[in-house]
Amino acid sequence: MTGNWGRWGVDDEAGALNLVTPEVTRRALGLVRSGRTLSLTQPLGPATPGPPHRNPPSRFMDRGAGDYVLGARTPGGFRFAEDTVQFATHSGTHLDALAHAWSGDELYNGHPQAGTRSTRGAARLGADKLVPVLTRGILVDAVAAAGGPLPPSAPVGVGDLERGIREAGVTVEPGDAVLVRTGWIESHGAAGDYFADEPGITEDAARWLAEHDVAVVGADNYAVEQQSATPGFPAHLVLLHQHGVPLLENVVLAELAGALADQGRSTFALLLAPIPLVGSTGSPVAPVAVL
Amino acid sequence: MTGNWGRWGVDDEAGALNLVTPEVTRRALGLVRSGRTLSLTQPLGPATPGPPHRNPPSRFMDRGAGDYVLGARTPGGFRFAEDTVQFATHSGTHLDALAHAWSGDELYNGHPQAGTRSTRGAARLGADKLVPVLTRGILVDAVAAAGGPLPPSAPVGVGDLERGIREAGVTVEPGDAVLVRTGWIESHGAAGDYFADEPGITEDAARWLAEHDVAVVGADNYAVEQQSATPGFPAHLVLLHQHGVPLLENVVLAELAGALADQGRSTFALLLAPIPLVGSTGSPVAPVAVL
Amino acid sequence: MTGNWGRWGVDDEAGALNLVTPEVTRRALGLVRSGRTLSLTQPLGPATPGPPHRNPPSRFMDRGAGDYVLGARTPGGFRFAEDTVQFATHSGTHLDALAHAWSGDELYNGHPQAGTRSTRGAARLGADKLVPVLTRGILVDAVAAAGGPLPPSAPVGVGDLERGIREAGVTVEPGDAVLVRTGWIESHGAAGDYFADEPGITEDAARWLAEHDVAVVGADNYAVEQQSATPGFPAHLVLLHQHGVPLLENVVLAELAGALADQGRSTFALLLAPIPLVGSTGSPVAPVAVL
Amino acid sequence: MTGNWGRWGVDDEAGALNLVTPEVTRRALGLVRSGRTLSLTQPLGPATPGPPHRNPPSRFMDRGAGDYVLGARTPGGFRFAEDTVQFATHSGTHLDALAHAWSGDELYNGHPQAGTRSTRGAARLGADKLVPVLTRGILVDAVAAAGGPLPPSAPVGVGDLERGIREAGVTVEPGDAVLVRTGWIESHGAAGDYFADEPGITEDAARWLAEHDVAVVGADNYAVEQQSATPGFPAHLVLLHQHGVPLLENVVLAELAGALADQGRSTFALLLAPIPLVGSTGSPVAPVAVL
Repeated sequence: MTGNWGRWGVDDEAGALNLVTPEVTRRALGLVRSGRTLSLTQPLGPATPGPPHRNPPSRFMDRGAGDYVLGARTPGGFRFAEDTVQFATHSGTHLDALAHAWSGDELYNGHPQAGTRSTRGAARLGADKLVPVLTRGILVDAVAAAGGPLPPSAPVGVGDLERGIREAGVTVEPGDAVLVRTGWIESHGAAGDYFADEPGITEDAARWLAEHDVAVVGADNYAVEQQSATPGFPAHLVLLHQHGVPLLENVVLAELAGALADQGRSTFALLLAPIPLVGSTGSPVAPVAVL
Repeated sequence: MTGNWGRWGVDDEAGALNLVTPEVTRRALGLVRSGRTLSLTQPLGPATPGPPHRNPPSRFMDRGAGDYVLGARTPGGFRFAEDTVQFATHSGTHLDALAHAWSGDELYNGHPQAGTRSTRGAARLGADKLVPVLTRGILVDAVAAAGGPLPPSAPVGVGDLERGIREAGVTVEPGDAVLVRTGWIESHGAAGDYFADEPGITEDAARWLAEHDVAVVGADNYAVEQQSATPGFPAHLVLLHQHGVPLLENVVLAELAGALADQGRSTFALLLAPIPLVGSTGSPVAPVAVL
Repeated sequence: MTGNWGRWGVDDEAGALNLVTPEVTRRALGLVRSGRTLSLTQPLGPATPGPPHRNPPSRFMDRGAGDYVLGARTPGGFRFAEDTVQFATHSGTHLDALAHAWSGDELYNGHPQAGTRSTRGAARLGADKLVPVLTRGILVDAVAAAGGPLPPSAPVGVGDLERGIREAGVTVEPGDAVLVRTGWIESHGAAGDYFADEPGITEDAARWLAEHDVAVVGADNYAVEQQSATPGFPAHLVLLHQHGVPLLENVVLAELAGALADQGRSTFALLLAPIPLVGSTGSPVAPVAVL
Repeated sequence: MTGNWGRWGVDDEAGALNLVTPEVTRRALGLVRSGRTLSLTQPLGPATPGPPHRNPPSRFMDRGAGDYVLGARTPGGFRFAEDTVQFATHSGTHLDALAHAWSGDELYNGHPQAGTRSTRGAARLGADKLVPVLTRGILVDAVAAAGGPLPPSAPVGVGDLERGIREAGVTVEPGDAVLVRTGWIESHGAAGDYFADEPGITEDAARWLAEHDVAVVGADNYAVEQQSATPGFPAHLVLLHQHGVPLLENVVLAELAGALADQGRSTFALLLAPIPLVGSTGSPVAPVAVL
């Protein structure tokens, strides 16, 4: 198997996140100018759009103000509200864990698929193995390049990445996070057709990113990669399965793109602090850009 | 009402997080030395300890490797696993949103309690109003001061805070996050009695922190504040209700304490990127210390 | 308050189900001819139609055959599958408990509404207070009377009930269950507009049924009563609130109507064995007609 | 394969419930004396006992009286409460569907185990295939025979069944339901050790029941069969897997036993109306005895 299998040892579960070393983090922090923090996340709740086969997130109030007006006790005057949430872990802005996608009998790094089953969740490569990372983010703004949101099924290929990164005045470094703005969330997010036919990266672009030791690849669409009549998710397999590169999906990028353009740059410090959901295949995350 | 009501406008919902300005963030980042990132979170899953009245988190595999060995299709060779999680939002390491606690008819900043009800969740001051913050963290290590984990119901008072911060060689600045290590998670986390009688900050200590414009207060216990025979949660009311200061609970601090001690310091860059759960009263969060 | 308040004592929570005495049950069983049992229920699962504001039911496999092909142990050769379900209790074929609907500050029989809150569920009049009943069912077939399914918002009024019951050759007896076939499930069940503008009983018809000491009223629609531009659910208030008569919704009646017509009758033994869900406002139920 | 495979056709999914013919139902109804109905179910809710590996049932109030006192609209004066429940389908009083247990690669009647997986639930033999039945119930009261509740791991063998049924003055007929009272729920139900080491039927007793064409076997314990150091659930395999006989668990029998003893009999009309949960492995059920 080509890719990163064995590169960080036979038991490795962190994959390309291993590339975000303390030195990489320091260099990323060196990009901070004003200290302004920008959230790149969708809110996560019952109104968060999702594909048809999946229930939207739920929230259940276990206790609210109503309990108190109806007579609940208030020891020391104290009133509190609490709630329970439920959601598919691939809802909203989230990171795919390495257990999320594979082909054949083995997950990334040869971990047996048998570890991913009902009674265990993902015993290996689950969301609890997603370490937090603070690294350099490179925004490849295909919307700016195209003059508007990309149409359905449009490819973002190697040339598009090379151009965008060259225009950023940088070269890709090991440990970078590359975020691609397709405009799909902006043009189709509210419509009912967001979860089909998205523009996104090609398989070749995925391979290019992996070969450049990118640690995370993300986009403002639901699956990062171009969706067309061709079945399957080849970029998922190149990135998650072969190279252990987590994917960041449903990222909100318009505001960041504007702020970076105002500053005449495309790179920024990016923090990803996923929730270590034990045995899950993905984690909600609120990515933070620090400008 | 004393406290911060009105300080950031009548409609403010961010509370003391307003104190974490870009300048505060820049200064916090100036503390970074090696760039090592340290997660301060518990894993969140079915084994996460919780109080008796609450179900533990659940994870349900919606698709796993078993589906494929039993014949599910693999378009383009693609196999994927996905899952759904469910948890009370105050499970594991989490931030209390400002909607979580109040007294009387109004939440922080005079928002009516009527906004917190079953059909809406928390219309105001919910977890979706918790902005990400990158600020300076100050560790007050009461375990080091006491020579071991604090016993049940032990107070961490104003004097303890002042001493710990003075020994850190700093003074509290607006926007700081103060994390108190009581040792409770270390000494009682695995036992069945974690969720009662914890050591923690006193009401006076809470007031001291609020008056010093601390933006976040956290601890390695379930409720930050000392628990004893006295009913209620007075520090919650001082911080969340009167001053709009979110509380960070069930933080894992032993490793951080050791790393900081090795470096002869008590301050560090701290990132909090909660998940913006719409209408929820709290959010899971993976706090990240950058050393 | 008119109606049945106080009729069975100040603490009564069973309402009109009290009318189904052992004698009523015996007489109902006297109607049995062949002993054929007919289920009047919709299947309950992820594909069960529901109104837009509500998630469909969920099913999560906690263990399946996949776990075994992936290596789970089989002590003594034993393999098992188990699952968890989740659903709004008013999904599919269900009985409204008496806690479900009211006006003013009191539920049926003067129980304070304060008993129905988040932390308790329905402390009084909940689904756990719905006793099983075996009684006589009377089918009022408005589809047969009209020559086809009723159109949207069509009323089934007192005259329609009187005619249908007269043609059944019976008079309403205390403890009867009256089931009205509107044809709504048959004509709109698969469409997206089932949950609006249904034909159903009028407020007057509800009052007529209550005054005739009917124990249960059901229909093959989502709310039993006619839905039109007029806001509210007056028949719910007459039946559930004033008279303690549970409502049976989303009943499947076409097959029963055909079988009864073949036998030249409209009455039959009906069993309702709801699940005693503690503190819930309704219960799924599989009504069984015994012919 | 011995047992009932093929007996009702290669596609049969109803198993021994096929034995409850209309004639069987008529004969069962002939046993009714007073018409008194008796529920044999535990309430199902957050307090329902369950084994350690399983969360207790949950109930979430989606709307309650609190919403109204806090200002929710009341069109036409109408107020309503609704809720969502969640539970493992083997919680409380329930019927095991035929998909619940098997050995080897095939379920009852040779249906491939591949039909029981995450994305489908139980495609065959699920709870939606459990037809309602009204049949004769025979109570085998091992508590009366022993003079008290059976001790842990005590066997109820062929001899015990034969004696109890002989003393009932009947012989087992095809389609009967046999309910065994062990006293386990009465002696250990409230304790923490209910879900281990129960007394129950032996494998031989299971075979005897199957060979006598019993349609349903139930008991007042969690798994019907004796539990001891021997691993596995052999009676489950004899009944569910080989003979297609559903199991009824956690039945409440003390009141029924007393009522039948008062009447000097052991047989009664029994109704089981499970909820047709699509693709589930079991269904909650409120069994009703009609005396």
